[in-house]
Amino acid sequence: MEELLAPFRQAVREQGDLVRELREKGAPEQEVSKAAAELKSRKKTLEAKELALQPKEDTVDRVKMEDTLKRRFFYDQAFAIYGGVSGLYDFGPVGCALKNNILQVWRQHFIQEEQILEIDCTMLTPEPVLKTSGHVDKFADYMVKDAKTGECYRADHLLKAHLKKLMCEEKCSAGQVNELEDVITQMDNYAQQELADLFVKYNVKSPATGNDLTPPVSFNLMFQTSIGPGGNMPGYLRPETAQGMFLNFKRLLEFNQGKLPFAAAQIGNSFRNEISPRSGLIRVREFTMAEIEHFVDPNEKVHPKFSNVADLEIMLFSSQAQTSGQSAQMMRLGDAVEQGVINNSVLGYFIGRIYLYLIKVGLSKDKVRFRQHMENEMAHYACDCWDAESKTSYGWIEIVGCADRSCYDLSCHSRATKVPLVAEKMLKEPKTVNVIQFEPNKSAIGMAYKKDAKLALEYLAVCDDCYISDQEKLLSETGEFSFETDGKTFKLTKDMVSVKRFQKTLHVEEIIPNVIEPSFGIGRIMYSIYEHSFHIREGDEQRTYFSFPTIVAPYKCSILPLSQNQNFVPFIHQLAEAMTRNGVSYKVDDSSGSIGRRYARSDEIGVAFGITIDFDTVNKTPHTATLRDRDSMRQIRAEITELPDIIQHLASDTLKWAEVESKYPIFEGQESSKKE
Amino acid sequence: MEELLAPFRQAVREQGDLVRELREKGAPEQEVSKAAAELKSRKKTLEAKELALQPKEDTVDRVKMEDTLKRRFFYDQAFAIYGGVSGLYDFGPVGCALKNNILQVWRQHFIQEEQILEIDCTMLTPEPVLKTSGHVDKFADYMVKDAKTGECYRADHLLKAHLKKLMCEEKCSAGQVNELEDVITQMDNYAQQELADLFVKYNVKSPATGNDLTPPVSFNLMFQTSIGPGGNMPGYLRPETAQGMFLNFKRLLEFNQGKLPFAAAQIGNSFRNEISPRSGLIRVREFTMAEIEHFVDPNEKVHPKFSNVADLEIMLFSSQAQTSGQSAQMMRLGDAVEQGVINNSVLGYFIGRIYLYLIKVGLSKDKVRFRQHMENEMAHYACDCWDAESKTSYGWIEIVGCADRSCYDLSCHSRATKVPLVAEKMLKEPKTVNVIQFEPNKSAIGMAYKKDAKLALEYLAVCDDCYISDQEKLLSETGEFSFETDGKTFKLTKDMVSVKRFQKTLHVEEIIPNVIEPSFGIGRIMYSIYEHSFHIREGDEQRTYFSFPTIVAPYKCSILPLSQNQNFVPFIHQLAEAMTRNGVSYKVDDSSGSIGRRYARSDEIGVAFGITIDFDTVNKTPHTATLRDRDSMRQIRAEITELPDIIQHLASDTLKWAEVESKYPIFEGQESSKKE
Repeated sequence: MEELLAPFRQAVREQGDLVRELREKGAPEQEVSKAAAELKSRKKTLEAKELALQPKEDTVDRVKMEDTLKRRFFYDQAFAIYGGVSGLYDFGPVGCALKNNILQVWRQHFIQEEQILEIDCTMLTPEPVLKTSGHVDKFADYMVKDAKTGECYRADHLLKAHLKKLMCEEKCSAGQVNELEDVITQMDNYAQQELADLFVKYNVKSPATGNDLTPPVSFNLMFQTSIGPGGNMPGYLRPETAQGMFLNFKRLLEFNQGKLPFAAAQIGNSFRNEISPRSGLIRVREFTMAEIEHFVDPNEKVHPKFSNVADLEIMLFSSQAQTSGQSAQMMRLGDAVEQGVINNSVLGYFIGRIYLYLIKVGLSKDKVRFRQHMENEMAHYACDCWDAESKTSYGWIEIVGCADRSCYDLSCHSRATKVPLVAEKMLKEPKTVNVIQFEPNKSAIGMAYKKDAKLALEYLAVCDDCYISDQEKLLSETGEFSFETDGKTFKLTKDMVSVKRFQKTLHVEEIIPNVIEPSFGIGRIMYSIYEHSFHIREGDEQRTYFSFPTIVAPYKCSILPLSQNQNFVPFIHQLAEAMTRNGVSYKVDDSSGSIGRRYARSDEIGVAFGITIDFDTVNKTPHTATLRDRDSMRQIRAEITELPDIIQHLASDTLKWAEVESKYPIFEGQESSKKE
Repeated sequence: MEELLAPFRQAVREQGDLVRELREKGAPEQEVSKAAAELKSRKKTLEAKELALQPKEDTVDRVKMEDTLKRRFFYDQAFAIYGGVSGLYDFGPVGCALKNNILQVWRQHFIQEEQILEIDCTMLTPEPVLKTSGHVDKFADYMVKDAKTGECYRADHLLKAHLKKLMCEEKCSAGQVNELEDVITQMDNYAQQELADLFVKYNVKSPATGNDLTPPVSFNLMFQTSIGPGGNMPGYLRPETAQGMFLNFKRLLEFNQGKLPFAAAQIGNSFRNEISPRSGLIRVREFTMAEIEHFVDPNEKVHPKFSNVADLEIMLFSSQAQTSGQSAQMMRLGDAVEQGVINNSVLGYFIGRIYLYLIKVGLSKDKVRFRQHMENEMAHYACDCWDAESKTSYGWIEIVGCADRSCYDLSCHSRATKVPLVAEKMLKEPKTVNVIQFEPNKSAIGMAYKKDAKLALEYLAVCDDCYISDQEKLLSETGEFSFETDGKTFKLTKDMVSVKRFQKTLHVEEIIPNVIEPSFGIGRIMYSIYEHSFHIREGDEQRTYFSFPTIVAPYKCSILPLSQNQNFVPFIHQLAEAMTRNGVSYKVDDSSGSIGRRYARSDEIGVAFGITIDFDTVNKTPHTATLRDRDSMRQIRAEITELPDIIQHLASDTLKWAEVESKYPIFEGQESSKKE
């Protein structure tokens, strides 16, 4: 296999070297980004080859799995009786229970264990907030429309599909193929006009009708609405939950008695108005996220509990490995931080904790990796970023992002609102520091901007060091810099503002915290769990089951009377009441199917255990019933009064099935004796 | 007190008699509704008097309470650093934890104990769904605008405030006062033009500026948006969670193996674009609801578990009591159903369960009542409706609605989508039934509606009995009837359709289930818990606490080291780890304040218990610490290793504080010895 992959690895490595070389010698930005795009494309090809060469038994039967998910109403298309809306799904009882359990474990694993401050903010968000965060201007895709029917398409997807079709045509020469490949490689780099030209050049038409297409326009992916009756407060449904935590920073800091570090978290829905959603649960228009913002002093990016996770061996796919054509490597987390592969131990700690969470809720160890963003993928403000990825039938998909966003978000909101979002640190000894400040020429600014001058002065007063240095550079290079505040644009020239540097003795230091942001896509995690835990019983293609870990299983236990005989009823009630008292979820199936058929139905939705009430239960004392383990299908027999506690301990993971087998007599009756 | 109230009761009773009399003699609709509005107004006056006469100690110090809620970030205005948006609130760590716990108890109490099918549907909803449900046409308030500033006001609120001001003016004669009172009484009954005339007649101006106002227009309270990029799929944020359960009825029925009764539930956010939100958490634009739809065979509206709640004594405020000027009465639930005060035992069962839930999460028994809707309050399709109300400083507010909605919702969606939303019931013996059907004259309809005729025929085929009877009446009285389907309006005359009645022998019966709908406003329940559990310590006005029941308390336990001495640290860690293992939420306060001050801070946010680590903990073996009960402030001393289990049992309500006191030595040290 490695032999087959060698040339592809080589191709990536060469391109990686080229990109590095171009960067080092300071080549023009356009040349670098073109080379980087080619590198990305070669990486994709290598990954596709790797996935194609993996053993067959590693791939899930997606058609069979999705049939089960739909038939047993894990989830299904929303508004189906009204024709359905793409990208919107409803979760049925099984999917909803699984989701609740995944979130419950998330709360235990993060909020409880890390003493994180959970908050709950509104989804409706007024425009200025998302203007500051950049979403109003940048959260968009290009779209083209069928000129007659109005049908919309994502421009890049459509162009790519069209070019791929052209490449397959016989008349397409080798030279043309190269040219088209080049265009596809550069797809993410084109500006609006370039894209428009390409649509004309390659004569792209509407795929459904052959009609002309309108030129590409930028389409913002947020759902817009209007807050209040006046029509003068445009708002959006939030595209992420993070902003609410930045906006509440001061309140949270105060709640934490002014001390850093601390973390906030939020679980809730976010929205993206995808142009043409596809891939089922992977790309939807309304989805649940769970996000953490860990606020930390940038000079103290060391996590005190890192040693708890340092010995974890995790599959890491570093930026360096990616640009040199290597595979992801198993690596000890402690080594990764020590060697600088991971930027700091706070980020390292969260990577370890995310990994443990994903395994706990049911992802396969060998199908989870952490991939580092390459330099050109990373937002300019982030200093390191790793995605947890899960291997599915769609390839490796991002399920959790974990970024060190430095002080970007708090600084932006601070500048926009003129509210300083900082923490104060008492210094043990007074300290002399270098201060950098804007020194405005008030009268010059006053002359230029009259009554708006106040806004500009307020703005200049809250800027942070990095921003001031950046503007200073502009000022010396171009003689001016611009900014926008309160919806007004200001252009300041050298005579209006200068930058002052001086030293100051501090007793208290003001800190703009850095933010480490683990961001979980709950729908994608759920989907990965489905794929990683879907199995077909050996020797019976028709019998499938989900091997959900007990703590997330939608129901912990089935209660199955052997038949509809009325003598079983009191025992059903006795068990049901005890389970309710223990907080263990259960499902009674007293329908008329054979016991084997009902076990199969119970396995199909991943119920962890099954209790069967049979005639021995009724006729013998002490009253006993059988308990069956879903994955092994093995059974034991125990007293009815003991069973609820056994299941409660199994469900909370304080008891293993093997221990149950060693304590109680194995039972081999019903299922085998009652063949369907 | 009763003496003071007697004349008000008398006034209500007289008006109630009048309304009944008018109804019985078939008076014109307008006359009846005018009398009913006057009845409502007299009821309000009576209730206001009752509340004004209640003992002072019964009323909460709302200013003090809200100061605590804000200062300790239970919740606060959203987007405050951007100026805030009215009607939108963010929940901080304490509020969020409380909310999660309330919802967790809800899941246990309803979903788990009643084996309800929980689902999770999207908030984005395409327009046709809400057209069918009536929200597009009817979910609206009248609004007026300041002609110059554009400021918006709710027309009825503004007019009422204006008239009240006029009534207080000296020049206002007794006759005029009567006239104005009459207008206020009728406020809910005015149509758009009548309202417009009143604004002109009483010369109402903008209260903020004195400017002219635009005439009242209807303003839909749903947030509108557009789904997908084409701009051709208008959608709304759902105004309630119920619709998702109706739309998934067929899937849920199948999940329940085709059997009735069963219930679905959904917890999630809904949205109402209030014109001018006020009253804090009581009236907001984005809020969490928990709704149940219990689907039941209309011929079997008997709940098998009703006897479990029949002995509850609940304060019921029946429609009959309301119209005769009586107070709400304590009544045994079983008697209320038997005497027909409550329509059926399914509704009665849910009233009992709702009551038990509210008490469990912290509402005061004497501040909860169930008020029956009077005939003119009830939606025309509902056959009985009771609101759980809570007594707060805003008066009695609705916190849970519990309505028998008959088959209304399923029938509407069935007609709109032509998908039969019915259950099948196997009959024990074949049965002869009366069938009522539309008998369309296909050629006449075809002539009139050409290619749309098919739509009309499909529509006629799925109508239910009640609807057919209603239309038959129209047909015979007016010779025609109209309906809308798929956006087209049809008017059918006698020659196009008739109604056929015949008998049929059935083996399987098709049933349109009736729906009992308990609908919980989680924010209002939370707010009521705050008011009912807020207390001021005797003798110290500055020390306040919330006596939340332990199961919903935001944190179960504080961990307080007596000082910042490093020797305490290992014990903090030992306790924290054990609490995490037990799933018990805790909060460490190792700040430098005195222990008394830190207890006060802990009580202020309603932490249920507090463990203090002192020098005896460190210096003596076995290591012990003190445990303090928030409400009584009493303390015991126990071994450190035992404390986490004690708290876990207290938190799950399997152990009472009194039992703890009887088992462990009482401690009387720290708090009293360390006065601030």
